[in-house]
Amino acid sequence: MKKNYIMTPGPTPVPEEVLLEIAKPIIHHRTPQYQEIFKKAVEGLKYLFKTQNDVFTFASSGTGAMETAVINLLSKGDKAIVVRGGKFGERFGEICSAYGIEVIPIDVEWGKPVEPEVIKKTLSENKDVKAVFTTLCETSTGTKNDIEAISKVASSTKAVLVVDAISGLGADDMRTDEWKVDMVVSGSQKGVMLPPGLAFLSVSKRAMDMAKASDLPKYYFDLKAYKKSLDKNDVPWTPAVSLVRGFCKSIDMIKEEGLENVLARHARLAIGTREAVKALGLELFSASPSDAVTAVKVPEGVDGQNLVKTMRNKYGVTIAGGQEHLKGKIFRIAHLGYMIEFDTTTALSALEMVLKESGYKFKIGSGVGAALQAFAETQKTVGV
Amino acid sequence: MKKNYIMTPGPTPVPEEVLLEIAKPIIHHRTPQYQEIFKKAVEGLKYLFKTQNDVFTFASSGTGAMETAVINLLSKGDKAIVVRGGKFGERFGEICSAYGIEVIPIDVEWGKPVEPEVIKKTLSENKDVKAVFTTLCETSTGTKNDIEAISKVASSTKAVLVVDAISGLGADDMRTDEWKVDMVVSGSQKGVMLPPGLAFLSVSKRAMDMAKASDLPKYYFDLKAYKKSLDKNDVPWTPAVSLVRGFCKSIDMIKEEGLENVLARHARLAIGTREAVKALGLELFSASPSDAVTAVKVPEGVDGQNLVKTMRNKYGVTIAGGQEHLKGKIFRIAHLGYMIEFDTTTALSALEMVLKESGYKFKIGSGVGAALQAFAETQKTVGV
Repeated sequence: MKKNYIMTPGPTPVPEEVLLEIAKPIIHHRTPQYQEIFKKAVEGLKYLFKTQNDVFTFASSGTGAMETAVINLLSKGDKAIVVRGGKFGERFGEICSAYGIEVIPIDVEWGKPVEPEVIKKTLSENKDVKAVFTTLCETSTGTKNDIEAISKVASSTKAVLVVDAISGLGADDMRTDEWKVDMVVSGSQKGVMLPPGLAFLSVSKRAMDMAKASDLPKYYFDLKAYKKSLDKNDVPWTPAVSLVRGFCKSIDMIKEEGLENVLARHARLAIGTREAVKALGLELFSASPSDAVTAVKVPEGVDGQNLVKTMRNKYGVTIAGGQEHLKGKIFRIAHLGYMIEFDTTTALSALEMVLKESGYKFKIGSGVGAALQAFAETQKTVGV
Repeated sequence: MKKNYIMTPGPTPVPEEVLLEIAKPIIHHRTPQYQEIFKKAVEGLKYLFKTQNDVFTFASSGTGAMETAVINLLSKGDKAIVVRGGKFGERFGEICSAYGIEVIPIDVEWGKPVEPEVIKKTLSENKDVKAVFTTLCETSTGTKNDIEAISKVASSTKAVLVVDAISGLGADDMRTDEWKVDMVVSGSQKGVMLPPGLAFLSVSKRAMDMAKASDLPKYYFDLKAYKKSLDKNDVPWTPAVSLVRGFCKSIDMIKEEGLENVLARHARLAIGTREAVKALGLELFSASPSDAVTAVKVPEGVDGQNLVKTMRNKYGVTIAGGQEHLKGKIFRIAHLGYMIEFDTTTALSALEMVLKESGYKFKIGSGVGAALQAFAETQKTVGV
């Protein structure tokens, strides 16, 4: 018998209750019945984003909402600072370039967080910058940026701050209003425990004013149309009805657990994973590890791509490998969304089995043991 | 007890088997397992579109694929003919305008099909037109255009033909290759019996060449990225995994019935509905009725918006009202996707109940009777 476990930083496992909610007979979206569902979803998003700003929902992947942020906020010839410390930071730059936005890149070594001081310096040297784009958790490297500190730097200038929290939301704390973040992007197949197909974007009043003045061409992702509809508890185009309905079930589960407990659970799983990595004699890739996903350097003598493949094909445990130039050099274990301690020990168990088969020298069980030890020590709000 | 029936031209009912497929545990999209699913989906789309062209899948509503067609095919300052005979034809015009494409409108009275001769004349007066945008079934009016005849007219010029078959595909015959249609758009929540959230676009070699040369800004909907991925049996951004998986189940059902039988079934349900409309003393709205949806004029003395509302709230039967200036003037009954004779008789039964309550004079049962009579006469390939 083989069981399948998805331990990637998106898609993440979907709770059975949510899957069943998604499987309910379809309803029409221009009905009071759907309006109730949509209203609840919007309220849930505000809770998750810790914001009173509007939060918009798109039938798209997270990349669609990243594009929405860029093309609504900016106008032709605008300048933007883009923090590029991984694949997804780079994506913001690619989107800007596609629309003729002048990109002022801040290139950060993959695995390192961006220094807020560098953003401060770049902003002071480029007073006409309209926006700063960065990530909460850079999924490709498992690196968390200090959004609070970045926001302090940005909010003293006229530039608006846009944060890609696609994989971070619900795992790393994201205080949209308290930190004055104008736009926050997220997606469904991560911390909110849904299949892929929905993307989210919170928009401050200041960002919406810029959207009203933006002259970049757009239609499907035009925030003006979404705003006009949202004010009537509606959406401009046909929404992904079943996923929005599933989201209402997810948010029920998140609210029942309590967002702070959800964050604490992610932190605990991440700590356990990091302790296991150390106990196994492995090295973390990131200098500022996120609580959404842990990136680990592939040890010398082990074939990194084969490790990921064997974990999936032989043991049914799907983790993520490295992307771009990190292919084969790192592997990434998520603790994101519908995951508890025993999901982490399962991932670590499969990892240990494959490491052993690869000839890597370590004491078997030491990784899982270190994780359990960490769980025992950090056991607080959420019972195991 | 109340049962709910969705009889709108999108979303349409989703078969239980498909709902259960969608509810399966999520899998990662960068795996051989997903590649198998995706490959099957692409083959299924080619079967449905009757094409050997590439067919691309987007995580978006149909509007996203309409925009994809416009912004990939055209370049700045290009001219396009847009047939505007309803809300969705107009949408093509709005998208073109949003991107600075010069729109040469062919305005058709809502409910009338476009005359191919008018397109011919407009093309001959505007030899620099790059594309003609029209619809197979204009959902807002239930009107079918003669794509074969339009294509004959367009294919003798350099203009490419783009057809919105969002609601038409699988109901009205769409022979992409035989009729030489360069781009065909469709969506998931219609004839393919899925929840909303996926959109499809078939692209001829000629259209792809234009896409490679297009200078309109784009990112999420950039066909070059999709084409590069498709050639490796992959997608550029995270796909709506569960919906694509559901599509594989839908296409199994469609193939088992046979596409020609599926079309014949839609035709039969449409004929039955039209016969019922006549028997009830009502009038069809469209001069060229589609087999996807039947639009009916609201008779004098009956409140059209209330009729739709009462059918939904009292009887659980959700049909569609009129849009824009047709609000309250027409209602629309779909026979689209997962529907058989008894779905049509259910819709007609609820309609008769509400008409009777509205004080409209007719012999009760006459509509359902006329439909049954038509079904008996047209019973051929599909057993009832």
